[in-house]
Amino acid sequence: MIHRINHIGVAVRSLGTSADLFARLFGAPPAHTEHVEEQRADIAFFPVGGSSVELIESTAPDSAIAKFIAKRGEGIHHICLEVSDIDGEIARLKGLGFVFVNDVPGDGGHGMRVAFLHPSSTNGVLVELCEPMSGAAVP
Amino acid sequence: MIHRINHIGVAVRSLGTSADLFARLFGAPPAHTEHVEEQRADIAFFPVGGSSVELIESTAPDSAIAKFIAKRGEGIHHICLEVSDIDGEIARLKGLGFVFVNDVPGDGGHGMRVAFLHPSSTNGVLVELCEPMSGAAVP
Repeated sequence: MIHRINHIGVAVRSLGTSADLFARLFGAPPAHTEHVEEQRADIAFFPVGGSSVELIESTAPDSAIAKFIAKRGEGIHHICLEVSDIDGEIARLKGLGFVFVNDVPGDGGHGMRVAFLHPSSTNGVLVELCEPMSGAAVP
Repeated sequence: MIHRINHIGVAVRSLGTSADLFARLFGAPPAHTEHVEEQRADIAFFPVGGSSVELIESTAPDSAIAKFIAKRGEGIHHICLEVSDIDGEIARLKGLGFVFVNDVPGDGGHGMRVAFLHPSSTNGVLVELCEPMSGAAVP
């Protein structure tokens, strides 16, 4: 079951510069920063309501974020939907014809197992599913 | 004050086709559909947690959504942050150097007064601010 928008991912060139910018926008510094080796990215989270805005800077020239910025520039990269049973959701959505980039959940950082739907099956929207490893909502 | 992510706006070519697609994704039909003349768009809302995904189809060839799709194709168009005092937030953000597309709030549909920050001042992210006209959170 899909519970909430966990976060909106925004691809940025410089996490330092953009974290300062979004801190002014939200009136508060990021609540959490992290390096996620599997995604080859540094990330910063700004909580807002029950969701967050996640800023993402690539740490490798051929990462997904680096390719996105090279093609489209900085901007909104993905939407992450939090689910309570990621394996069950993947099976349900594959049964409905949705296509996944990875249908075996990986480490998304921030204590989350994650899988990405391919934007070709969701109107150009990159949808990430996430399930907290602890079973508890994060943050 | 910024309270929550009210919705994520997704530009689509066909609201009918995409509403069916997102209904399968979320496991439920849209909770609300509306024509917003000021935005020259038809919209459909899918609630998820305390936020929504908003699908947007242009109803005029020179609307903002039509131009976005012509340039970038279908995909995530904007993020909408719900505030309790939109005039106060606009003044605060302008004082910090943020640039607005419109700094006099207009009718965003769905009972909302809205204003858009220019993406050039927010890392390519089109940020909409909204305030419920009734003072109550919608939906």
